[in-house]
Amino acid sequence: MIEDKNQPRTSLSNLGEFGLIEHLTQNIEIAQPTTIKGIGDDGAVLDFKEKKVVVSTDLLIEGVHFDLAYMPLKHLGYKAAVVNVSDICAMNAKPTQITVSIAVSNRFPVEALDELYDGIKHAARVYGVDIIGGDTTSSQKGMILSITAIGEADEDDITYRVGATDTDLLVLTGDIGSAYMGLQVLEREKQVFQVNPDNQPDLDAYTYLIERQLKPEARMDVKELLKALEIKPTSMIDVSDGLSSEIMHLCKQSGVGCNLYEDKLPLDPQLINVCEEFNIDSTTVAINGGEDYELLFTIRMDDYDKIKGNPNFTIIGHMTQESEGIHLVTRANTKIPLKARGWNALKEEE
Amino acid sequence: MIEDKNQPRTSLSNLGEFGLIEHLTQNIEIAQPTTIKGIGDDGAVLDFKEKKVVVSTDLLIEGVHFDLAYMPLKHLGYKAAVVNVSDICAMNAKPTQITVSIAVSNRFPVEALDELYDGIKHAARVYGVDIIGGDTTSSQKGMILSITAIGEADEDDITYRVGATDTDLLVLTGDIGSAYMGLQVLEREKQVFQVNPDNQPDLDAYTYLIERQLKPEARMDVKELLKALEIKPTSMIDVSDGLSSEIMHLCKQSGVGCNLYEDKLPLDPQLINVCEEFNIDSTTVAINGGEDYELLFTIRMDDYDKIKGNPNFTIIGHMTQESEGIHLVTRANTKIPLKARGWNALKEEE
Repeated sequence: MIEDKNQPRTSLSNLGEFGLIEHLTQNIEIAQPTTIKGIGDDGAVLDFKEKKVVVSTDLLIEGVHFDLAYMPLKHLGYKAAVVNVSDICAMNAKPTQITVSIAVSNRFPVEALDELYDGIKHAARVYGVDIIGGDTTSSQKGMILSITAIGEADEDDITYRVGATDTDLLVLTGDIGSAYMGLQVLEREKQVFQVNPDNQPDLDAYTYLIERQLKPEARMDVKELLKALEIKPTSMIDVSDGLSSEIMHLCKQSGVGCNLYEDKLPLDPQLINVCEEFNIDSTTVAINGGEDYELLFTIRMDDYDKIKGNPNFTIIGHMTQESEGIHLVTRANTKIPLKARGWNALKEEE
Repeated sequence: MIEDKNQPRTSLSNLGEFGLIEHLTQNIEIAQPTTIKGIGDDGAVLDFKEKKVVVSTDLLIEGVHFDLAYMPLKHLGYKAAVVNVSDICAMNAKPTQITVSIAVSNRFPVEALDELYDGIKHAARVYGVDIIGGDTTSSQKGMILSITAIGEADEDDITYRVGATDTDLLVLTGDIGSAYMGLQVLEREKQVFQVNPDNQPDLDAYTYLIERQLKPEARMDVKELLKALEIKPTSMIDVSDGLSSEIMHLCKQSGVGCNLYEDKLPLDPQLINVCEEFNIDSTTVAINGGEDYELLFTIRMDDYDKIKGNPNFTIIGHMTQESEGIHLVTRANTKIPLKARGWNALKEEE
């Protein structure tokens, strides 16, 4: 519904593989002092001196992870970079570089790849990471993106999924559920558009949700916020697959249980309204919806006073002994076992 | 022609995404002292101390980069890892880690991914690199592999594409062209198989060529060989797209020209025989065929005595002033301008 049918089309074969790579990677500047050599050789060269290196990678497939019917290419590029930067943030490390590999079928003109790359470059500027390499090739079908993010950290700062103890508090940044409901709104509009292409959707009531879905941000600020508060998280993960699923990762790896409190879940007012409109339970959305890219972490009980009332953080629960299990404590004060539905990317194909 | 129709089939959806990742990554051991944390968190953590870090990444797409009709999955896994390790070797660095991302359609059972992963794990053992992360997801069509390789090196050892001077010698490891002719043999056998599936091919005369195509090796030994000879290459690249194309990369980035000598090209006797059988000029194959993963590098003229007669290396030409251009000097002593045909992965689709 957002595709401009009159955009210029330069066939990828006009440029060839080397020409295309040169075209896409022109104007890429190096800003990180750790980048010695970026794009243009068999490999990039980095120098982290005494710092530790953190590496994370993600593969994004058209039709599985994104739908170009409502995802503008520039946003897709931005989001693809952000998703990987978020993984580095979830290690309590500072993102410094990304590599970008793209495969596309020839249905995409050079201009489409320019759009995509613009989004990636924009994210690189916003997060201060260098684009240091990648690969560009053709696909049999659709678009495929593979991004690897690299970061640096002092050894003492790095936070793993393992490390929570049974007396720790569970803390979340920002709010959750909105990215998932943004997707529901976009899916609905896509169906409306398919029935009546002339319909102009009024999306004013959904702007926050749609932005959370189409242009999520990684919480690169949290490392510094926590440092200023003199808090070292005991474990940390980012909310990509859904809160429930991430809590279970922390619990499993740390060998603890958890009580999550329904009345503590931070929900945006727009999310609550739209859940009512869609007749969906907002708690279900908050604990199972993914792609919020907020950070979920545990802190020692002693750090409670440092964080309480801080608008950046919400204490949403506390860890328990492993034998007590992992539960949602509802507003009615009943305990329901949490299940990791998460986001199963490997559904059965037709 | 090599697919076993009776192999067990466990659907990917039986395991789910998390279950599949756990299944595939079990038994992965960490051997590198630089790997602090491998698979199982938002990111891997590495410690290179005073060493520099080298990063390279490649995307491999079914139907574009490989054909499962003649590429066994185990070989594909091995080759995908080797191709990336080779890029690290081409920086004169030591490969230390890889990340492995895989997307597959549900036409592949779990057993197929096991085969693929076995090949990757085997390569990791052979080259002593740790598998430290990755992503596993579904694709709309076919198999997609994205591998990022990481290596380490002392700053003084790292060799770039830029650095050759107009009096340097051009040196190649091993022999070239065989991987390309191996592919031609396999393509021919595929066609024979399609006509007559009961035909049992006799491939004895092609074993070396087929092995070069299906199971290439990265020249991780060259860094040590050169160190023992007290030679520091002035520039270096690996032969993935074809000798001609790689020579042009070195010349362009170093700002020099080159004379390549036809009679110096190191060709395996099997390659020469099969080129005759296929009625293809072996020199054309040697300079345009890719995927040999040998190393091409330049050395200072003063180092000639250290390398001459060494069976690991062949001096195939010398660099010139940029204004002299890039030429093949034929056996008849005529000079033909080299063209980078290489391997254009972005051909026009039907």
